[in-house]
Amino acid sequence: MNLKEKIREIPDWPEKGVNFKDITPLLQDKEAFVYAVDKMAEPYIKSKPDLIVGIDARGFILSAAIAYKLNTGLALIRKKGKLPFKTLSEDYSLEYAVNTIEMHEDSISPGQKVLIVDDVLATGGTMEATLKIIERCGGYIVGVSFLIELGFLGGRKKLGDYSVNSLLTYEK
Amino acid sequence: MNLKEKIREIPDWPEKGVNFKDITPLLQDKEAFVYAVDKMAEPYIKSKPDLIVGIDARGFILSAAIAYKLNTGLALIRKKGKLPFKTLSEDYSLEYAVNTIEMHEDSISPGQKVLIVDDVLATGGTMEATLKIIERCGGYIVGVSFLIELGFLGGRKKLGDYSVNSLLTYEK
Repeated sequence: MNLKEKIREIPDWPEKGVNFKDITPLLQDKEAFVYAVDKMAEPYIKSKPDLIVGIDARGFILSAAIAYKLNTGLALIRKKGKLPFKTLSEDYSLEYAVNTIEMHEDSISPGQKVLIVDDVLATGGTMEATLKIIERCGGYIVGVSFLIELGFLGGRKKLGDYSVNSLLTYEK
Repeated sequence: MNLKEKIREIPDWPEKGVNFKDITPLLQDKEAFVYAVDKMAEPYIKSKPDLIVGIDARGFILSAAIAYKLNTGLALIRKKGKLPFKTLSEDYSLEYAVNTIEMHEDSISPGQKVLIVDDVLATGGTMEATLKIIERCGGYIVGVSFLIELGFLGGRKKLGDYSVNSLLTYEK
């Protein structure tokens, strides 16, 4: 199935010069949605993770469906101030600002095998911070899975030696 | 399975006097998560919806897993300014403010059978606005499904004659 046909490009959004990849047509199409979830889950059926980690907010979509498919739980990475219990946090830099992500401190048991799922790998800043939080919790990261990788932004370099899978790659 | 044991109550969050129901322990527990998705999906296996609508942000989790389970697509309701394409919007009132939700105008084809999924029914304001947007798109709403209903807030009264299912109800 050609999933790229189901991804809509939106020029100059959210700011001028960015060619945004809108995944909503893919999500709305049942064949494309189920196919994408199955293909993203496939490499992890044998090395079964104990837990999926999903990232606020669009990352919740694919991570939850993959958790259901792989019969695991789901832990959440959220933007600062959204989680009600005790949290661990990590800052990461954007071009002109610093963002903070948080995870509940009891999200992961030490030694649990964790698969991280997000929709898009862009510059890799959020994922780099996510990896740090999960390591601090003692999670064993079995992989990082993206629906889309924007290869021309080079985010993969920030993810070190972790096993990274992307279903779709764009080079421009 | 007693799912309420997996829901953590957080006193005075996000503000004084609110006893917040934190679903993250349920999501992290694979048996509880898969059981909750299966039980929420069960009433709709026969009257199979064409599309699930999920609500930003925690609502994306259960809606995506239910969409995968029922083999349907997923359309998104988001807070204002988050969707990149042409949108329909609806305002709804909070105690001291007005919020706006949006949906892409091509999310639903007229006549599609739509199941709406969210995590919590509180005062019902978001869901009331969601119902209006979906009706404007010509969607046929087969049901509204919540993991949790805060019965003491009376939100169900705002949802008219729609078929509403809640897996867990709290009366205080």
